[in-house]
Amino acid sequence: MLKPLGDRVVIELVEQEEKTASGIVLPESAKEKPQEGKVVAVGSGRVTDNNERVALEVAEGDLIIFSKYSGTEVKYEGKDYLILRENDILAVVG
Amino acid sequence: MLKPLGDRVVIELVEQEEKTASGIVLPESAKEKPQEGKVVAVGSGRVTDNNERVALEVAEGDLIIFSKYSGTEVKYEGKDYLILRENDILAVVG
Amino acid sequence: MLKPLGDRVVIELVEQEEKTASGIVLPESAKEKPQEGKVVAVGSGRVTDNNERVALEVAEGDLIIFSKYSGTEVKYEGKDYLILRENDILAVVG
Amino acid sequence: MLKPLGDRVVIELVEQEEKTASGIVLPESAKEKPQEGKVVAVGSGRVTDNNERVALEVAEGDLIIFSKYSGTEVKYEGKDYLILRENDILAVVG
Amino acid sequence: MLKPLGDRVVIELVEQEEKTASGIVLPESAKEKPQEGKVVAVGSGRVTDNNERVALEVAEGDLIIFSKYSGTEVKYEGKDYLILRENDILAVVG
Amino acid sequence: MLKPLGDRVVIELVEQEEKTASGIVLPESAKEKPQEGKVVAVGSGRVTDNNERVALEVAEGDLIIFSKYSGTEVKYEGKDYLILRENDILAVVG
Amino acid sequence: MLKPLGDRVVIELVEQEEKTASGIVLPESAKEKPQEGKVVAVGSGRVTDNNERVALEVAEGDLIIFSKYSGTEVKYEGKDYLILRENDILAVVG
Repeated sequence: MLKPLGDRVVIELVEQEEKTASGIVLPESAKEKPQEGKVVAVGSGRVTDNNERVALEVAEGDLIIFSKYSGTEVKYEGKDYLILRENDILAVVG
Repeated sequence: MLKPLGDRVVIELVEQEEKTASGIVLPESAKEKPQEGKVVAVGSGRVTDNNERVALEVAEGDLIIFSKYSGTEVKYEGKDYLILRENDILAVVG
Repeated sequence: MLKPLGDRVVIELVEQEEKTASGIVLPESAKEKPQEGKVVAVGSGRVTDNNERVALEVAEGDLIIFSKYSGTEVKYEGKDYLILRENDILAVVG
Repeated sequence: MLKPLGDRVVIELVEQEEKTASGIVLPESAKEKPQEGKVVAVGSGRVTDNNERVALEVAEGDLIIFSKYSGTEVKYEGKDYLILRENDILAVVG
Repeated sequence: MLKPLGDRVVIELVEQEEKTASGIVLPESAKEKPQEGKVVAVGSGRVTDNNERVALEVAEGDLIIFSKYSGTEVKYEGKDYLILRENDILAVVG
Repeated sequence: MLKPLGDRVVIELVEQEEKTASGIVLPESAKEKPQEGKVVAVGSGRVTDNNERVALEVAEGDLIIFSKYSGTEVKYEGKDYLILRENDILAVVG
Repeated sequence: MLKPLGDRVVIELVEQEEKTASGIVLPESAKEKPQEGKVVAVGSGRVTDNNERVALEVAEGDLIIFSKYSGTEVKYEGKDYLILRENDILAVVG
């Protein structure tokens, strides 16, 4: 299992085929092309200056759109994941 | 449905024809050309260091002017949307 | 009507003729040339980290000097406006 | 009258002759040459994140030294002024 | 013993062989290649503006993934270590 | 008299001869060569976001080492001074 | 005596010979080579926005590793010192 730190989430990349099924089509001309993924793990949130954790808005299982070129790719137990900061997530789909 | 995160909003781009109807005409010489859109979804707001959400000033249905070149284009269920941060919205029209 | 967001104001540009009347003359050599305008709408203010709005110092009807090249030009119902952040306003005249 | 906003002050430039009289002589080799001026108006101060105004340290009539190349020149009712942020003021003379 | 300061951790680099055993395989094409390590010492945490220490999320013995090119290499008593800030740790594995 | 603002101090430059006497010798190879001076006036301190002044650590008469190339040179009543921010002071000597 | 300001410390550089004795060997390939030193004086700490001093984690006599190229070299009463910010200290050895 991968447990992300702070305000990070672990994302399973959604295949191009599934993408069409869920209705998201990415325009050719987009300056900052978004991508779709499924949240498989969420961090415990960033810590404010008042020493409180800010819980993430997304939860395990959420289908999300995120900014392309953000995050770090990881291959774990044979599957590809992406570790993102919540700030790179644009919206939840569904 | 697209549910934006944090202080983001989802905008439906207003067609050039509608723009004339609502009275906004963009000057040729504008350094940072604004554009018009209709808010279709708002995020729950950014979190302050006191761990409180700051509700957005704009609401669903608002007609807004935003800075050109801001945000990320998304095509969802065949329609074009733009996901913006509230900070890129200049004014509400109406 | 244009309702600016946050700490923004909507300014009606003051004509060169009026400028002379109100006594402001801009020096040729100014590095950052100021300009004059009349406030026609003010935002509800920025939100502090304590989730309070900071009311703007300027009010509707104020004659102001602002830094040239700041803000975004908008033409609305046939008139030219400028949307500025309060921070780009140097002084109130009068 | 010019009423500066926030932590700004309006300065009347002190003539080169007066400068000698008050005892300030600027060295040729100074990297960042200071200049002298008289405060003619002060803003109400910046607003902290606790929504309190921080009163300025300088007052009307103070003779000050400020960093050259800071601020914005304004000509108002035939006289030259400079609008500075308090942070560009180095010291009060007197 | 090495006792890291603030929000730093001391990491023992995990050999390429062990890496395969634990299931992490790094993709060739990763823009920001993550690496694996074992936490051998943690700092007491950063200090907030309220003068409180924020305890680290990772603990001694944790197997972690961190961003390549982060941290500082140190050889201590014949072994190689890496001193990282917690912010450069992407996730805990296990 | 020069009364510095905020977290600034006015420094009287210590001559090269005195420098040797007090035991400070600056290495030729220093990347950021420090210099020695005597504090002749201190500001009332910076204002925190809680609207409190932070008193300076240095006092009138202190012999200090500061980073070369910091501050602004001023000649006042025939003597050379340097106006520095307290942050540019490295240490008090003595 | 040198009394560092704020979150600074005064470091006595540890000779290459001693370094080997204490077990620290610096790798040739290190991007940011750390160095070893002994703390001879600590500042009273930085001041938070709540106007409290944050005591330093290191104390007089600590053997530390710090990032090469950080700090300012000073020669005082014939000995070489380095004045560092605590943030440039990676770990305490011992």
